[in-house]
Amino acid sequence: MSAKASLIAVGTELTTGFVRDANLYYLAQRLDDMGIEVVTSEMIPDDRPLMLSVFEEAMRRSDLVIVTGGLGPTEDDFTKEVLLQRFGGEWCEDEATLEQIKRLLERRSLPLTTVNRQQAVVPSSAEVLPNAFGMAPGTLYHYDGGILVSLPGVPSEMRGIFETELVPRIASLAGTVRHTQIYVFGVAESLLSDRLRGWSGALPEGLSLAYLPAMGTVCLRLSGDVSRCGEAVYAAKVAELRSFLEGDTTLMTELSFPAYIVATLLQRGETLAVAESCTGGAVSGRITSVSGASKVYKGGVCSYTNEIKERVLGIPHALLERHTAVSAPVVEAMAASVRELYGTNYGLATSGYMELENAMPQQTGEVYIALATPTGVVSNHYLLNQNRQGNQEWSVERALRDLVVALLGD
Amino acid sequence: MSAKASLIAVGTELTTGFVRDANLYYLAQRLDDMGIEVVTSEMIPDDRPLMLSVFEEAMRRSDLVIVTGGLGPTEDDFTKEVLLQRFGGEWCEDEATLEQIKRLLERRSLPLTTVNRQQAVVPSSAEVLPNAFGMAPGTLYHYDGGILVSLPGVPSEMRGIFETELVPRIASLAGTVRHTQIYVFGVAESLLSDRLRGWSGALPEGLSLAYLPAMGTVCLRLSGDVSRCGEAVYAAKVAELRSFLEGDTTLMTELSFPAYIVATLLQRGETLAVAESCTGGAVSGRITSVSGASKVYKGGVCSYTNEIKERVLGIPHALLERHTAVSAPVVEAMAASVRELYGTNYGLATSGYMELENAMPQQTGEVYIALATPTGVVSNHYLLNQNRQGNQEWSVERALRDLVVALLGD
Repeated sequence: MSAKASLIAVGTELTTGFVRDANLYYLAQRLDDMGIEVVTSEMIPDDRPLMLSVFEEAMRRSDLVIVTGGLGPTEDDFTKEVLLQRFGGEWCEDEATLEQIKRLLERRSLPLTTVNRQQAVVPSSAEVLPNAFGMAPGTLYHYDGGILVSLPGVPSEMRGIFETELVPRIASLAGTVRHTQIYVFGVAESLLSDRLRGWSGALPEGLSLAYLPAMGTVCLRLSGDVSRCGEAVYAAKVAELRSFLEGDTTLMTELSFPAYIVATLLQRGETLAVAESCTGGAVSGRITSVSGASKVYKGGVCSYTNEIKERVLGIPHALLERHTAVSAPVVEAMAASVRELYGTNYGLATSGYMELENAMPQQTGEVYIALATPTGVVSNHYLLNQNRQGNQEWSVERALRDLVVALLGD
Repeated sequence: MSAKASLIAVGTELTTGFVRDANLYYLAQRLDDMGIEVVTSEMIPDDRPLMLSVFEEAMRRSDLVIVTGGLGPTEDDFTKEVLLQRFGGEWCEDEATLEQIKRLLERRSLPLTTVNRQQAVVPSSAEVLPNAFGMAPGTLYHYDGGILVSLPGVPSEMRGIFETELVPRIASLAGTVRHTQIYVFGVAESLLSDRLRGWSGALPEGLSLAYLPAMGTVCLRLSGDVSRCGEAVYAAKVAELRSFLEGDTTLMTELSFPAYIVATLLQRGETLAVAESCTGGAVSGRITSVSGASKVYKGGVCSYTNEIKERVLGIPHALLERHTAVSAPVVEAMAASVRELYGTNYGLATSGYMELENAMPQQTGEVYIALATPTGVVSNHYLLNQNRQGNQEWSVERALRDLVVALLGD
């Protein structure tokens, strides 16, 4: 049995949708890496009685509870107070934290105020987890059967304390669970499910198959607790799953699509440029979010108007007139043009109607994605059926996916 | 008192961080718009006993429970089964849903399989909420004191059913809460808190002030239930808050920064282009996520290497040699160049070191942001202290914020 964790992000900015969560997403990935199962991951407003009851429920369910946020200097932050109430002790000033606060303020040439000093005060029942990246320290508490940890809500500080202070302290909870991820392209989830139902239903104890759908692509994930099923059985089941998928286009990787693209190009010594219309720069943004992208990605052009398609990418006026900007000929010309302009091996291009405003009703969600390679240009045509934001997100996913599938084939 | 809602997103792809939540984020904003308070918003894995216990807890806390996901055709989806167990009744095939499924399959020239047909089967205790965008319908159940709604996890389908079917049915829960948001630039949260503590502590019943921090910018939000405090008192308190902030750079808006930028440029008949290095296209992506962006945003260049800065943006080789790509002269030249190349009123540019790999330790997180306007070019210099992803996110925020502040001043 793997250890269970509950995650709680405190903050009205989250429950009102003012800010999009980043901490729960980060922690989910990291705990999954460590083989710790996240059983609940929730956002709650700055509300004392609710916090206390949610903390209790999480402790009942889990061996590890991580609370982020509510440690700021304003009067609507009171995670610390709730933890003092729950775990007892008295307020005490942590000397090392006070020194860190003074150092940070000195660097910014600011005086030490009462509010700043207050951030060094923690419950005496807590073990302090130093914050090398900001003012509010993390704190750790023991309950019957587990530990609860409070971390700041600022993502950089949360990540810093988690990695340097918390990971070593929870090493004993880390499991022996292995995961194998296989992306399957071009097969509907329901058909896959039909084909695999018998096999996955008969998996031995300790093994399980999950369908992880993400924007039209299905990822099959085989998870196995090797301390229960053994390494050999796990390896055999991975091989069986792969043999079931023979003939389908598949990719076995733990990497995200952008990370896979960067790693593959790096390995081959190849380069990429992107020309975006409907995705507006977001494909480029996703690729450059990967460490090391600058070695293979030279950059891109967002040509959001016909004028810019002509002026920057050199798309002939006549071609735009004849076919419109959302057409196979134009998006193929964009891909070829950006490949040449940037001097890269690959040129990827997108163009589409994201919402009604700029299109006829029957055209909304129509997207073309083209890829130029040393051997020519190909394009795909998609019809999406979401709102503007959804159509844009899916278009980005389709462009990344088309490139992944092309790299698999090369 | 406003109505309370609990949101539950079901899916192991969420609790393992394979997919980043979009549904909870969307629902949080929409319910906040409607004056319904979200008290818990959580992600849980595909686990029957856990689902049941989390549903019960949510019903205990709330007048409205919205569950998304777990309605797919695969064997690890069983929200429906858990709801049948909780609310009773028997399985019955919904005729209208079956017709919709047949229509969707016909359009894709696919036969009706047992698995597909299964998606039209719902508990007889449910009211069916038709899904015009996919196969699995929403369902609605009554419990003592509230309603629970199950919606598909596919964002487009979830949004579609929420807007067309659910919003009319929960109109009676919508509150009389008003929100006023004021962004305050260049003032630390702790100083603001010191200045406003007395005032906010003395707010009449039904009024509250929240600090919504987001990447270095503080937004003050005054919320008032006008059915309790009255419209006149609410308006008076908004005016008082504004007078407290006189002399600070502030922006009162319900819009996000990208939406504010697009709306302001549209109103002024002005245009924008962006040249990105360290932000890699993400600034462009954020601006084009706004409906109507194509009327004011002509596009951008992602120049991720020095070669492209020279070739596409025409930055002189000597300037790059003398100052390096991360310097005020180069980023100012990028802003001026993209403004000219795209023929716009404004040119915004970014350049920085996002991680150690490409920089000396003391340079990591160093970012320059420049804005070219008809009257000249100015730049700001920032030192960020996060990891690659965090530094990139903050750089995007800073670029948008710098443009917002510039538009306020013009």
